[in-house]
Amino acid sequence: MPTEFEFIENLRKKFALKRIGDDCAVLPKDSKTDLVITTDLLVEDVDFRLAWTTPELIGNKALSVSLSDIAAMGARPVWAMISIGIPEKLWDTDFLDMFYQEWFIVSKKFDVEIVGGDISKTPDRVVVDSIVAGEVAKGEAILRSGARPGDLIFVTGELGGAASGLKLLEGGVRLESAKSWQKTLIYKQLNPTPQVKTGIQFGESQMPSAMIDLSDGLSSDLAHICRESRVGARVFVDKVPIHKKINSLTKSRDEKLDLALNGGEDFELLFTVDPKKIFVLEKEHQNFPFHHIGEITANAEIIELISTGKTAILEPKGYRHF
Amino acid sequence: MPTEFEFIENLRKKFALKRIGDDCAVLPKDSKTDLVITTDLLVEDVDFRLAWTTPELIGNKALSVSLSDIAAMGARPVWAMISIGIPEKLWDTDFLDMFYQEWFIVSKKFDVEIVGGDISKTPDRVVVDSIVAGEVAKGEAILRSGARPGDLIFVTGELGGAASGLKLLEGGVRLESAKSWQKTLIYKQLNPTPQVKTGIQFGESQMPSAMIDLSDGLSSDLAHICRESRVGARVFVDKVPIHKKINSLTKSRDEKLDLALNGGEDFELLFTVDPKKIFVLEKEHQNFPFHHIGEITANAEIIELISTGKTAILEPKGYRHF
Repeated sequence: MPTEFEFIENLRKKFALKRIGDDCAVLPKDSKTDLVITTDLLVEDVDFRLAWTTPELIGNKALSVSLSDIAAMGARPVWAMISIGIPEKLWDTDFLDMFYQEWFIVSKKFDVEIVGGDISKTPDRVVVDSIVAGEVAKGEAILRSGARPGDLIFVTGELGGAASGLKLLEGGVRLESAKSWQKTLIYKQLNPTPQVKTGIQFGESQMPSAMIDLSDGLSSDLAHICRESRVGARVFVDKVPIHKKINSLTKSRDEKLDLALNGGEDFELLFTVDPKKIFVLEKEHQNFPFHHIGEITANAEIIELISTGKTAILEPKGYRHF
Repeated sequence: MPTEFEFIENLRKKFALKRIGDDCAVLPKDSKTDLVITTDLLVEDVDFRLAWTTPELIGNKALSVSLSDIAAMGARPVWAMISIGIPEKLWDTDFLDMFYQEWFIVSKKFDVEIVGGDISKTPDRVVVDSIVAGEVAKGEAILRSGARPGDLIFVTGELGGAASGLKLLEGGVRLESAKSWQKTLIYKQLNPTPQVKTGIQFGESQMPSAMIDLSDGLSSDLAHICRESRVGARVFVDKVPIHKKINSLTKSRDEKLDLALNGGEDFELLFTVDPKKIFVLEKEHQNFPFHHIGEITANAEIIELISTGKTAILEPKGYRHF
């Protein structure tokens, strides 16, 4: 049974699809600008559960996951469309009102214009397809394929929070009765914040050589960069920033690391930078909010996990659709 | 309970969405070109049934309904994306292969580049969101709002075929054992042909004052034009082109008319033309393939249905999602 990734790889080869393989497709807009565009399908009982979230949080997440893809290209989001299918039983409730209201709030926050969409009936479950387009200077979209041996690897925030939130939800914890630390983790899962500002800054500064957003999990997403760039990577275990609230969830070092390395949906940015540029990167970003977690190697598609005294191979274990 | 149309109207007002209300959103591309873009959600057991169709036909229809929206703007389709969700039980079959194969064939036929998409798991049903973008000269997208009293009303083909095909499928007729006339009607339902070439010609000639594709049905779609243009219309019953094979389905004149006036999904183009341009329209289109069915009036939002000696009011009765 092929995975989603293998299936898409097959399609890419079979139909010679040159624009597939990044967070967004890159298309020419005008003489100075490229358009980047992404579509993300969210399905009830696969990507969210109505009992665990709210219509507002679904509206926010639908737009945020696509904004995160735009950020990962170093682009500025410009417009959005949404297709939504809902069962008849929800049509008479305020579900759609709440959903759209939050979707509009998020679009306003990030200066994204709502330009269209589709609404349809479904037999029993909610489904949302979110489409967002962004703009970036011609030829300057930051791809997965630009990492070079010697480049340093960074992430924008702490990892494992969203996966920990999912664990809590699966264990029966609900937002309305959650403790403060649980709420923080659950919100990481249900209410992600796309790194729009950092994405725009990086598009302008052209600082990263490669970039991706952390949707599948660090081990999988770093593997995507390595594959597209035909390089390897070395990750220093002690440098991986584990979300602080995970300490309240588990004391096990292995479990915490597993959440940070393989947990999906943190929607932070993972990027690589030529070491010669680090001085400028530090100067441009006050209080340096990024975590240096490793470096790119020439050892194609091998990701080494380095801890004191030993080296292991990090296999992609993040979220798989199948 | 608001209809889908009413719900969208409310959104439009509430959030001052100026780009919503046509078949596509119109966005500036460069100094000479506008981008038009559409998204269409197709849901299993609402828009199609797996037992009635094939993966190839779903692939074709998903792209064709969006191409029809592009044609209705007078635009040339340029690129497409697709998001698809399928249940695990279909992942191991050739469903996706067959679906994509046909989708690629149709995209090639109409010179549309596939630029991306998303694949996701669903609990039990197939869902497809089709996104297509097109290009048209700046300011020359043909809108629903341009019809003026005195304009003549045309459709590109015969009507009611797709609704008749649906009736046959609902009555238990299946493609594999259908008679020839039944097959023709069922294919109108399952295998629509978007009027891409005519759409492009009309964008270039700027012949129509207003245009829409017949997805909901003539009575509903003409009402959309009347509403956006703040005009009325007069339809001559005897001029409505009823699909010829419907004669084999029913001898009832009322039933045939009902299928042609209210049946959805024919994906023909409905357009209005200033009578002063008719001579040029006839000259530009050999064997004049269009059917003149009526005229635009100043009687805002009232559609009169004229038959020998009497006038009735035509209410929108086409396909409603809710």
